[in-house]
Amino acid sequence: MNVNGKPYRTIWLDPKDPAVVRIIDQRLLPHHFVIEELRTADETARAIREMHVRGAGLIGATAAYGMYLAALERCTGSEDGFLDALREAGDRLRATRPTAVNLDWAVSRVLQEAAGAGTNRQRTERILRTASAISDEDADFCRRIGEHGLALIEEPARKKNGPVNVLTHCNAGWLAFVDYGTATAPIYLAHDHGIPVHVWVDETRPRNQGARLTAWELGQHGVPHTIIADNTGGHLMQRGMVDLVITGSDRTTYTGDVANKIGTYLKALAARDNGVPFYVALPSSTFDWSIADGLNGIPIEERDATEVLRIGGLDDGEVRSVLLAPPASGALNYAFDVTPARLVTGLITERGICPATEAGIRGLFPEKCS
Amino acid sequence: MNVNGKPYRTIWLDPKDPAVVRIIDQRLLPHHFVIEELRTADETARAIREMHVRGAGLIGATAAYGMYLAALERCTGSEDGFLDALREAGDRLRATRPTAVNLDWAVSRVLQEAAGAGTNRQRTERILRTASAISDEDADFCRRIGEHGLALIEEPARKKNGPVNVLTHCNAGWLAFVDYGTATAPIYLAHDHGIPVHVWVDETRPRNQGARLTAWELGQHGVPHTIIADNTGGHLMQRGMVDLVITGSDRTTYTGDVANKIGTYLKALAARDNGVPFYVALPSSTFDWSIADGLNGIPIEERDATEVLRIGGLDDGEVRSVLLAPPASGALNYAFDVTPARLVTGLITERGICPATEAGIRGLFPEKCS
Repeated sequence: MNVNGKPYRTIWLDPKDPAVVRIIDQRLLPHHFVIEELRTADETARAIREMHVRGAGLIGATAAYGMYLAALERCTGSEDGFLDALREAGDRLRATRPTAVNLDWAVSRVLQEAAGAGTNRQRTERILRTASAISDEDADFCRRIGEHGLALIEEPARKKNGPVNVLTHCNAGWLAFVDYGTATAPIYLAHDHGIPVHVWVDETRPRNQGARLTAWELGQHGVPHTIIADNTGGHLMQRGMVDLVITGSDRTTYTGDVANKIGTYLKALAARDNGVPFYVALPSSTFDWSIADGLNGIPIEERDATEVLRIGGLDDGEVRSVLLAPPASGALNYAFDVTPARLVTGLITERGICPATEAGIRGLFPEKCS
Repeated sequence: MNVNGKPYRTIWLDPKDPAVVRIIDQRLLPHHFVIEELRTADETARAIREMHVRGAGLIGATAAYGMYLAALERCTGSEDGFLDALREAGDRLRATRPTAVNLDWAVSRVLQEAAGAGTNRQRTERILRTASAISDEDADFCRRIGEHGLALIEEPARKKNGPVNVLTHCNAGWLAFVDYGTATAPIYLAHDHGIPVHVWVDETRPRNQGARLTAWELGQHGVPHTIIADNTGGHLMQRGMVDLVITGSDRTTYTGDVANKIGTYLKALAARDNGVPFYVALPSSTFDWSIADGLNGIPIEERDATEVLRIGGLDDGEVRSVLLAPPASGALNYAFDVTPARLVTGLITERGICPATEAGIRGLFPEKCS
């Protein structure tokens, strides 16, 4: 999507130096737009762990490119131990963000490609092709999610005066993927089709990905939007000010339980209480085909308390971190929660929209039936 | 309650100069502890409007002292127009915070006292006695709320190992009243009785009264507590990490609908979904005996978008405000929401605990039957 009028993806190989992977350092948005270069698998792992990049799809694509950088590091060495070194790099990358299922999915896919015959050089080239394919597929799947989800915005638009109000939580926008985003893809498409749409952007404490990233990317694309505190969505739904909710997901079980940014569950409860449709947009790579019970099965990442106790923002042109609480008070920082399938109206995938049930999901992805 | 080991109330008459009312400027907490002097009704109105003081009980007590300062200003003038001037001051005070029912209640009570016979001087003395009585009653009612609510913490304490986990939203602590607080009163009492209790403190965006005020006052009193993002409570309830929720209220209808800080409704939904008891602690002055339908009847204050877009915190010993969002993005800032009575387990009042129903409330306050 566009930044200052110029099209970008969130990750790409440097066209002049194929040993360099480029990303946007999202920690600095919306205040500064900085491109960062990754040259090693360890730099890549740090970029994921410290959230220079974040979001389900982008984490997967970045891990795949990280595996490519790991292969490059070993490419000129002996063939003995090449795969072991790759597996170790894969373990380090997998350990960076425990909830994100795309991470494991991308690393495993790369390892499978690498395991075939050939020299280190040939294997490294295959890994690069795989990383590029993962990137392109991510963008393509997001575009298709937009096409399928468009009807959900068109329908209320036909029935009302004024814009369709979509509430979203966190950033499941193009910054969380390679392009288009998931929750935002139907919104961008509706906007581009001239359907009046307005987005309620949950700020999404503690890291404020909504206020920092979703608001920024919607603004860059010209989509009308309003930032709200995470506490506000229930009240807006009570007042009829939300036509539908669309969020992303970091991991969804094959039974339809949705792990997503902490606080998603609360919005799903409010949507149910007020008869507001609650949709989750996700590419198939985000499904976990091994877990039946999301609440008991999905590991929930606990992050540093500092993210709750301090916050970064712009003051006099500089990004500063300020302390929000008494110095003696501690905090607990779970990054995700699980929204039970019973609260989800439907899942928007690259193959279409389905109910958040095992039957619904298997209906769209029959090849996953075991 | 204690600050740095010394007992304070949140509002008091200067013992050396009875033309001066003293308050704690709560905007600067938890970073700086500053006492402020109020000398006129207009200064008092500004202190309420700009939230130097806030919270249901304290707003009422401050408005009463504001009426006293208004009377003092007119005390030496002619008797003609004294009551008109008081009524005008009352209107200005009432207009500062539209959701807080204690404001209207306190101003009306003072006006009633002032309306009796006597010189301006005599009336002014009666008004001061009324303001003091409102203050003392507020502290006394909060203490009794603590005594009635104590059983709600004692009961789970008998059944479990480890501390009873109470979740609270915003600040319904002593800083929101004259002393003790409402939601915190049972907690302080339990703690003082040696019952192990731990408080999950919702930070309560946008103004972060939880992280700034509730955490500070619990810390000063030695009560174990942990700050969480507002998004986190639902997840904790899903995991069995919350034994009960206690919040305050800014206005509760005689049918049991509860207006409280924005986001309270979301926690009530999560409590209901997880079988966690959800209590609201309030003095009887917070009941609105005229409104049957909270959602349609209670006016909801909309505050400045800046409170969402910027936040203040400590950096290098200085309190700074930082920008959290893209400069071009706007925000919407409703300060309260309404939790329907059906989601409330019970109301803790100075007369005891009752169901959040008209019959339950009238049972405790039969003199309010019309």
